[in-house]
Amino acid sequence: MPAAVAVVGRTRKCEVVPVSTAESRNTAPGDRPARTGEDALRLPVEVPSTALFTDHYELTMLQAALRAGTADRPCVFEVFTRKLPEGRRYGVLAGVGRVLDAVEHFRFEPAQLDHLRTHGVVDEATLDYLAGYRFSGDILGYPEGEVYFPGSPVLRVEGTFAECVLLETVILSILNHDSAIAAAASRMSSAAAGRPLIEMGARRTHELAAVAASRAAYIGGFTTTSDLAAGFRYAIPTTGTSAHAFTLLHDNERDAFEAQVAALGRDTTLLVDTYDVREAVRTAVEVAGPELGAVRIDSGDLLLVAHRVRDQLDRLGARDTRIVVTSDLDEYAIASLAAAPVDAYGVGTQLVTGSGHPTCSMVYKLVARARSTEPGAPLEPVAKKSLGGKTSLGGRKWAARRRDAEGVAEAEVVGTGPVPAELAEAQLLVELVRDGEVVGREPMDVARERHAAARAALPLSATQLSKGEPVIPTEYLAPRTG
Amino acid sequence: MPAAVAVVGRTRKCEVVPVSTAESRNTAPGDRPARTGEDALRLPVEVPSTALFTDHYELTMLQAALRAGTADRPCVFEVFTRKLPEGRRYGVLAGVGRVLDAVEHFRFEPAQLDHLRTHGVVDEATLDYLAGYRFSGDILGYPEGEVYFPGSPVLRVEGTFAECVLLETVILSILNHDSAIAAAASRMSSAAAGRPLIEMGARRTHELAAVAASRAAYIGGFTTTSDLAAGFRYAIPTTGTSAHAFTLLHDNERDAFEAQVAALGRDTTLLVDTYDVREAVRTAVEVAGPELGAVRIDSGDLLLVAHRVRDQLDRLGARDTRIVVTSDLDEYAIASLAAAPVDAYGVGTQLVTGSGHPTCSMVYKLVARARSTEPGAPLEPVAKKSLGGKTSLGGRKWAARRRDAEGVAEAEVVGTGPVPAELAEAQLLVELVRDGEVVGREPMDVARERHAAARAALPLSATQLSKGEPVIPTEYLAPRTG
Repeated sequence: MPAAVAVVGRTRKCEVVPVSTAESRNTAPGDRPARTGEDALRLPVEVPSTALFTDHYELTMLQAALRAGTADRPCVFEVFTRKLPEGRRYGVLAGVGRVLDAVEHFRFEPAQLDHLRTHGVVDEATLDYLAGYRFSGDILGYPEGEVYFPGSPVLRVEGTFAECVLLETVILSILNHDSAIAAAASRMSSAAAGRPLIEMGARRTHELAAVAASRAAYIGGFTTTSDLAAGFRYAIPTTGTSAHAFTLLHDNERDAFEAQVAALGRDTTLLVDTYDVREAVRTAVEVAGPELGAVRIDSGDLLLVAHRVRDQLDRLGARDTRIVVTSDLDEYAIASLAAAPVDAYGVGTQLVTGSGHPTCSMVYKLVARARSTEPGAPLEPVAKKSLGGKTSLGGRKWAARRRDAEGVAEAEVVGTGPVPAELAEAQLLVELVRDGEVVGREPMDVARERHAAARAALPLSATQLSKGEPVIPTEYLAPRTG
Repeated sequence: MPAAVAVVGRTRKCEVVPVSTAESRNTAPGDRPARTGEDALRLPVEVPSTALFTDHYELTMLQAALRAGTADRPCVFEVFTRKLPEGRRYGVLAGVGRVLDAVEHFRFEPAQLDHLRTHGVVDEATLDYLAGYRFSGDILGYPEGEVYFPGSPVLRVEGTFAECVLLETVILSILNHDSAIAAAASRMSSAAAGRPLIEMGARRTHELAAVAASRAAYIGGFTTTSDLAAGFRYAIPTTGTSAHAFTLLHDNERDAFEAQVAALGRDTTLLVDTYDVREAVRTAVEVAGPELGAVRIDSGDLLLVAHRVRDQLDRLGARDTRIVVTSDLDEYAIASLAAAPVDAYGVGTQLVTGSGHPTCSMVYKLVARARSTEPGAPLEPVAKKSLGGKTSLGGRKWAARRRDAEGVAEAEVVGTGPVPAELAEAQLLVELVRDGEVVGREPMDVARERHAAARAALPLSATQLSKGEPVIPTEYLAPRTG
């Protein structure tokens, strides 16, 4: 069995991709159900483990709690943010589907355990616990694409201290990254007002962060991506035609355009700003005819150039030829081009860096725990209390969005007691994991549509790009005592 | 052969991790030589391909060039940045080791080719080319950890258009991300002036970006990381003890401290700001004795609190107990604590987001190409020429750093002609890949030491944190004509 032996100890920290290519055919964009390696491949070592995307201290806390006998205390952890990035009106939750994958694949492989042992990270009793680790608790949360506000309990993780504390780092990594991208995407898509948005930021961020960014951008309203890995992993439609290098490779611009049209057809997009835009547009229409699909402008004063190019195209009879612009765009630049004859926007840097806010400030906090592992031991609220601004509200929380008579959101209501009857139907948390089994998986298009609907139900000022307060307040409802 | 069959078509987009755990033992931090899957595992489908970390348009350009007969023209592409992030005095090149891994694993798997075919990304002739793709050219570049300036040709990729153009996206992803983190790390490590820096930003960025960020931070001068995956992959020392959740889990702070000291020893770091810092410090020393390793402060006015805690520890006889601070630090906060009795800094968000600049603006540009594939056809400089600021300098470039009599850098000299004799020994580009074979791999500690030396050889103003111009100018030397 040389093959099997060779595979032992080889573990990769990565995302799962479709096991058979049939799965990637003709499917709508979406998270494909992750499979456990055991079931799919009958090779236990082939599970793409997420267990080491974890801070060292989660394991030392576990060791200390195991020894103290407190590791099995029932606990509730919640993910929330104390504030939105400066000036933002709403947040967009993304990454939930990836969190479910990560929880499902959170298993310590022999090679990982060996590493922890060799480096003395934790003791043998803790390694034994890790070797058998499977999350067996419950996770509820806001569904993916939903908007959120300061204090929104976007994820609630319940189980023993041991099983919950280990998930902190990877859950925060995913939600903080993906939600930052989705928030930028949402602002850009609302500024684009229906015009297609192409995600093309792969080159501006880590190569795997780029794949997650494409996914988050799609949920936030983007249409396509340049990133082939995102097409492969998430079935997001990919697009692209050529760069300046292609024009420069050839002896002249006409040769380049002819080569491209010969290979990709008249419906292709020709890049017209390598030398002189006016001359390039003329050459482009000469080469491709008025059936030319589109021209792309990647530099200069886009507003001015777009108008000139539109005029020129129209005069050349290329009335259906579209204009794509792609130079350092952000939501403000997109908004400023609303009146320009632009047919699509390509966005890179500012999207994958969250348009000034590359991460959210979500935290994962213990909000309640029992004092014993006796069945029926009550969950008691807990919270950090020292001065310095990092306080938070203890207790297991529910959340609901209160709407006015027209259905417009007017408050995020977060509470720790019973849910008032009038808010029962407006609750936000849904079941994602029950008794360790993922129950909340859904296609990406559902999250994308949910986001569009949730944003549309916010007060109109939500889509103002200028800095401001969260568009609705967060109200806390404590249980009535006496 | 059920196992082998099951593995077919399963491909992961990921980093390579050590094949045997023996490799991860007792090694200094470093990039382990990547192996190709074929050699190591005898399972061709097990190669962790990086080929889809690629923009769609790289492949359509390839298709058009193949059809036009220009795909095999000899080309030179260069990576450079037109400017540093606003106010930064120098850039730090990181990710070179990861680029070498990515180039080595840039191979299109059957499942990936099927995906491209099914989605009509490129035609059969192009798929044939991709199926046999191996980079066979040369790559030269600044060695990892070196500083760079606007116009520095940090990487030069030479080969046919076809083989070079495909590498654009993944090379830029890696260098733009990793260099952004290393630049922030370098500023923080110079502000820390020798005090240890702990990287703890995993939860604030994509889970795999976090691993690369730990690596870049180490090169930029950080000491340890909280990220177990970074320890596993790159052998960076990991550290961590406990969070507020651990204190809150227990019935009171004393119980928590006792549990931690019992499990982790007196030399552990106790977190003292869950309730009242003064009381916590007293309890900590009562529980652990004066041998207590450290206390951590994660909120409040760190300067004030650190002084008070130091006084209190000293009065309690815990003179060797260290103080670790970890609350939203950046290079400015670190500098402001220079006079405080702080023994180590933990940095998260601001490190992994590049301290305001989460990406660099490196581009990958065709700078020279031959007009034919005839042997000896001359390489001609090419460059985009249209108005709008995105122009660049054509021609294959060398680079050297001119120094004054004391060895202090005074200019980055970039040229396209022969290298002046007086700069021959000061050249910056080194061989990384020769005829497709990686020749430039090195341990991470070499890059880390190189960075410290390169920064030390800059004018003193390089380490000013205030905004300013690049600390040395970039001079262009064109070949003398006539």
